[in-house]
Amino acid sequence: MKHLLGIDDLGAEGIGEVLRLADSFLEVTRRDIPKVPALRGKTVVSMFYEDSTRTRLSFETAAKRLSADTMTFSAGSSSLRKGESLLDTVRTVEAMGIDAIVVRHKSSGVPQRIAGWIDASIVNAGDGWHEHPTQALLDAFTLRRHRGDSFAGMKVAIVGDVKHSRVARSNVKALSALGAEVTLVGPPTLMPPNLEGWPVKISYDLDVVLPTTDVLYVLRIQRERQQEALFPSLREYAARYGVTSERLARLPADALIMHPGPTNRGVEIDALVADDPRSVINEQVANGVAVRMAVLYMLLGSGEGRAA
Amino acid sequence: MKHLLGIDDLGAEGIGEVLRLADSFLEVTRRDIPKVPALRGKTVVSMFYEDSTRTRLSFETAAKRLSADTMTFSAGSSSLRKGESLLDTVRTVEAMGIDAIVVRHKSSGVPQRIAGWIDASIVNAGDGWHEHPTQALLDAFTLRRHRGDSFAGMKVAIVGDVKHSRVARSNVKALSALGAEVTLVGPPTLMPPNLEGWPVKISYDLDVVLPTTDVLYVLRIQRERQQEALFPSLREYAARYGVTSERLARLPADALIMHPGPTNRGVEIDALVADDPRSVINEQVANGVAVRMAVLYMLLGSGEGRAA
Amino acid sequence: MKHLLGIDDLGAEGIGEVLRLADSFLEVTRRDIPKVPALRGKTVVSMFYEDSTRTRLSFETAAKRLSADTMTFSAGSSSLRKGESLLDTVRTVEAMGIDAIVVRHKSSGVPQRIAGWIDASIVNAGDGWHEHPTQALLDAFTLRRHRGDSFAGMKVAIVGDVKHSRVARSNVKALSALGAEVTLVGPPTLMPPNLEGWPVKISYDLDVVLPTTDVLYVLRIQRERQQEALFPSLREYAARYGVTSERLARLPADALIMHPGPTNRGVEIDALVADDPRSVINEQVANGVAVRMAVLYMLLGSGEGRAA
Repeated sequence: MKHLLGIDDLGAEGIGEVLRLADSFLEVTRRDIPKVPALRGKTVVSMFYEDSTRTRLSFETAAKRLSADTMTFSAGSSSLRKGESLLDTVRTVEAMGIDAIVVRHKSSGVPQRIAGWIDASIVNAGDGWHEHPTQALLDAFTLRRHRGDSFAGMKVAIVGDVKHSRVARSNVKALSALGAEVTLVGPPTLMPPNLEGWPVKISYDLDVVLPTTDVLYVLRIQRERQQEALFPSLREYAARYGVTSERLARLPADALIMHPGPTNRGVEIDALVADDPRSVINEQVANGVAVRMAVLYMLLGSGEGRAA
Repeated sequence: MKHLLGIDDLGAEGIGEVLRLADSFLEVTRRDIPKVPALRGKTVVSMFYEDSTRTRLSFETAAKRLSADTMTFSAGSSSLRKGESLLDTVRTVEAMGIDAIVVRHKSSGVPQRIAGWIDASIVNAGDGWHEHPTQALLDAFTLRRHRGDSFAGMKVAIVGDVKHSRVARSNVKALSALGAEVTLVGPPTLMPPNLEGWPVKISYDLDVVLPTTDVLYVLRIQRERQQEALFPSLREYAARYGVTSERLARLPADALIMHPGPTNRGVEIDALVADDPRSVINEQVANGVAVRMAVLYMLLGSGEGRAA
Repeated sequence: MKHLLGIDDLGAEGIGEVLRLADSFLEVTRRDIPKVPALRGKTVVSMFYEDSTRTRLSFETAAKRLSADTMTFSAGSSSLRKGESLLDTVRTVEAMGIDAIVVRHKSSGVPQRIAGWIDASIVNAGDGWHEHPTQALLDAFTLRRHRGDSFAGMKVAIVGDVKHSRVARSNVKALSALGAEVTLVGPPTLMPPNLEGWPVKISYDLDVVLPTTDVLYVLRIQRERQQEALFPSLREYAARYGVTSERLARLPADALIMHPGPTNRGVEIDALVADDPRSVINEQVANGVAVRMAVLYMLLGSGEGRAA
């Protein structure tokens, strides 16, 4: 595997391989000196054309723990203001001998386009409404740490603004590939217009779905969406789909609560819920480093020097 | 010790420990290869919500010389624009396995609040008008390099806008804990409103204070304060409190001149004064790296692997 | 040699030394683990007061491949907003024990001024319209990889806005020192006002020059120049000096096409031309890392620990 552009690049088998590899890297991250020399001499560049603290730092941490060199540039501080084209930028970066580029971009398909131009490995760190594959992988990894490999029949409810969510898209693909049953929950205006072929059920009523849910996956509400006609007010949204303490009483006692972060406390999720014992939100973040180590290692590792 | 939030966390004994440790790290920084493996595998993140070249680079240099990995984010290039809460940000950073966060924030008390939320070590790199403890430690270290441990009875005059100065607050605490006698000098409008309990003398007349001063500590004037009614004009300020060559004639020949930088030459200090043989301003900067190495080592070092 | 401020610091002999050293570093960059410990423990800071992706990343890559520590600050995220003077900034950086500062600044002469103030090594990464010496060195290195040491009599045409080009200035000096014959080509308004003493020929007609050109060096057009009266419209410029496929038919089959990047495709160079087999534009970028390794090594390397 050369790139990670979307979940389809992996399939169920590839996902399984990433998750097993992440197990061993999770063990590395818990050591006193949480580093291995696996990618010494490799260089990973973060190209973030959209703000992100958590994803950028997670990838950088992962790369450093593999002993890779890291460099970063964000849209603000680079030649992009000079009107340098994306093509020129990535060709330049590649010509310098960079081994992998981690890209976030607000336009869907940008990582794919870059992968067509150059020989370095491309990791999609989120492109428009399209995909965010490492998020889905770390989510699957987090579930697997709690439930083992038994994804078959697991009932996952993904709640929120599915229409504009790359996290939802990647998770639907990954979780259904692994055998889980995904239900999308939200107001009709926030569902994707064309759901044919998606291996999912749809519900507009969270309260009905909760009692049979094993995993409640709460999406982040983008406050800026409120400008749009199709979005209910935050208050109205919170009343119908916000995950409150009262609502949680309907969720089975052994269910898990997930969120890709950062949470809007009081909007899609109550502060108390984020701290509920069933919440694995902080684990998701911690697992993100191990999963990204696994992805970078799969793309750049020679197979020798393996995490020892 | 887990955090360094303010000078009171240390007390006289803790300050002494930092200073002695900094001695050995100062020796490290003068080696041909000025690095020790003391913090290999540790990760230090700089979270600067306020601009700072010198403090950020000084901490990064210190961390790298201890072989720690470093990452940085500033308010502009992060998810902060997304409205991510401080709580979410630091929890995320911690969940990734970061060992220490170096925080600068324009609001007093932010480092303390963060320390209450998470398990990673927090270093206060300046919070509002409150404290800037590593500055006071490097100042004390610089004095100790020149005067030895005899702080008792040392007469220190801190001159300028004491009211808005976290550097002054931390220095008053550190220097008086070590036994020095501190006099605050400046116009009444730039003195803190409530000085009860501060172990200091006050003077509004620099010329009177100078002849009996061992250490002249000149604070930086924030030009933006001029907008405020309580601030005299820069010209008026410079006339009464600016450290000019003429004024320096009153300062004993063996006194020391200090400034936390960057200087406003021609305002609080004349260009010639900054270059006076009694000035130790550049030493302060150099010592800052050794002192920050000592602080990071005290917070994160296991006690084994010690600077060898 | 302590600084690299301009090509004159090197002379023909120094240029030759950089190019020979770069040969061995180019070999390093092609290894599986493209790193050498030559500058372990040295710290290189990038101070970029002007946007640049490629130059900053190229220097950082070079420094990391020599095992130096790197730090970066750009005008936006530093104390520069506080009105800190350049003098204070560089003195601070030096006092921290930094070994080299790589400077880009929009004003000519800034690197020279800094070199006069401090003891650290200064590398000019582009100053105003003045010089960009590492660009000229990587260009010479690229030519040498194709043509060997036989610069004598090599006919180089530098085409474009020579007046505002630091790349042109540095290349004229380097190439003529090595024995090449340089012709500057462009509209009279974009020629430097005073060319006396420059070892060059001038032409206003690219089509006349092309058939006898060994190396066609195309400068980047700065679109913002269009505001100025002396600049023709982009369309007019492209018609007379744009390097199109038709125009290329006049260029000898064994000529080389160079560009410092990033290209404005469709303005000074057609997309197809940039991909012409005679184009060595991507090689220039790749060679840039090896040449910058050579420069940093010459300035900071002890002579021991040499690339092994």
